[in-house]
Amino acid sequence: MIDQYPSKYLENAVLEISKLPGIGKKTALRLALHILKQEPNYSQSLGKAIIELKQEIKFCRNCHTISDSDICNICSNAKRDASTICVVESMKDVMAVENTHQFNGHYHVLGGSISPMDGVGPADLTINSLLQKIEQQTIKEIIFALPATMEGDTTCFYLYKKLSAYSVAVTSIARGISVGDELEYTDEVTLGRSIIERKIYSFKL
Amino acid sequence: MIDQYPSKYLENAVLEISKLPGIGKKTALRLALHILKQEPNYSQSLGKAIIELKQEIKFCRNCHTISDSDICNICSNAKRDASTICVVESMKDVMAVENTHQFNGHYHVLGGSISPMDGVGPADLTINSLLQKIEQQTIKEIIFALPATMEGDTTCFYLYKKLSAYSVAVTSIARGISVGDELEYTDEVTLGRSIIERKIYSFKL
Repeated sequence: MIDQYPSKYLENAVLEISKLPGIGKKTALRLALHILKQEPNYSQSLGKAIIELKQEIKFCRNCHTISDSDICNICSNAKRDASTICVVESMKDVMAVENTHQFNGHYHVLGGSISPMDGVGPADLTINSLLQKIEQQTIKEIIFALPATMEGDTTCFYLYKKLSAYSVAVTSIARGISVGDELEYTDEVTLGRSIIERKIYSFKL
Repeated sequence: MIDQYPSKYLENAVLEISKLPGIGKKTALRLALHILKQEPNYSQSLGKAIIELKQEIKFCRNCHTISDSDICNICSNAKRDASTICVVESMKDVMAVENTHQFNGHYHVLGGSISPMDGVGPADLTINSLLQKIEQQTIKEIIFALPATMEGDTTCFYLYKKLSAYSVAVTSIARGISVGDELEYTDEVTLGRSIIERKIYSFKL
């Protein structure tokens, strides 16, 4: 519907905003007109925040998560257990695990999962950096907290094979029915795996 | 779910992006991480486009639409008929009417509709500027192209009363069933109005 813009600044803003995922030309125009309606300092602070985001953000040298400094707050926290490493796909997953308040170790952000379909191979992930860490530091346990997808499973399997050369415990977060789930409505694959990977309360023969 | 950000730049970007309409904290984080994954020149050009949008855009002195100069391309175009003015709510509606290629006159952007619920009164719109135009120039026809809502109708009624003091033809865009509509599925108010405002082909008593 939109083919002629009355201003090249509006056209440019719509073009740039519509490059964001899930935002088409119509939504971009709506957002641009919204920004135009606000006080000038809003467009200033939004524009500045976006430019600074890319300019200023660093990645932690140790765990590869997003950070303001060379070493992130978690890695530099002496109270956290450096001998346990939780391997995750992205920085969003670090935030998700942190929000559970159930983990006090360090993280390792892979930067994705192995996915031949998307052209992501082991070399694109920070796997070598993880292996280096295990060689150079005293690591007791590696916990895989990867998604329960084909890509996540592939990555788990690849990492597990790589890690079997080292004397380190390798675990994975539990998979099974979610808290609050009814058995009746759980999909059969999840329920099947939750039976296979059942938790042992007491086991007498 | 999100309460701790690993970087203040990320937090700031999420905060600013989530101020946009229809974008919550989760979407804002997704967009910020997307920007972070792109080449640096994307965040530069997006940020710059947003800042310039507010800084550089002007409003046409004559019709109040968005423009790069004091007088917009439509008002400065000598081929267009300055004696016919299409009154619209916003600059988006100018674009919508332009895309029909059925109108060759000038526009007048009101900047909204009268809406006591939202605290928008006649003084908040560019009505005085429209009346001045009629007094100072030779205007033959004013076409209302306002939305078929309560606010649009209120504005039409208010403007019609104001304009009755001047010798100018006042018309409104036709309301009725849309092209391609089945009568069966048309809502009764629209269908009722389309019967009342029926078009006369031939009328013999």
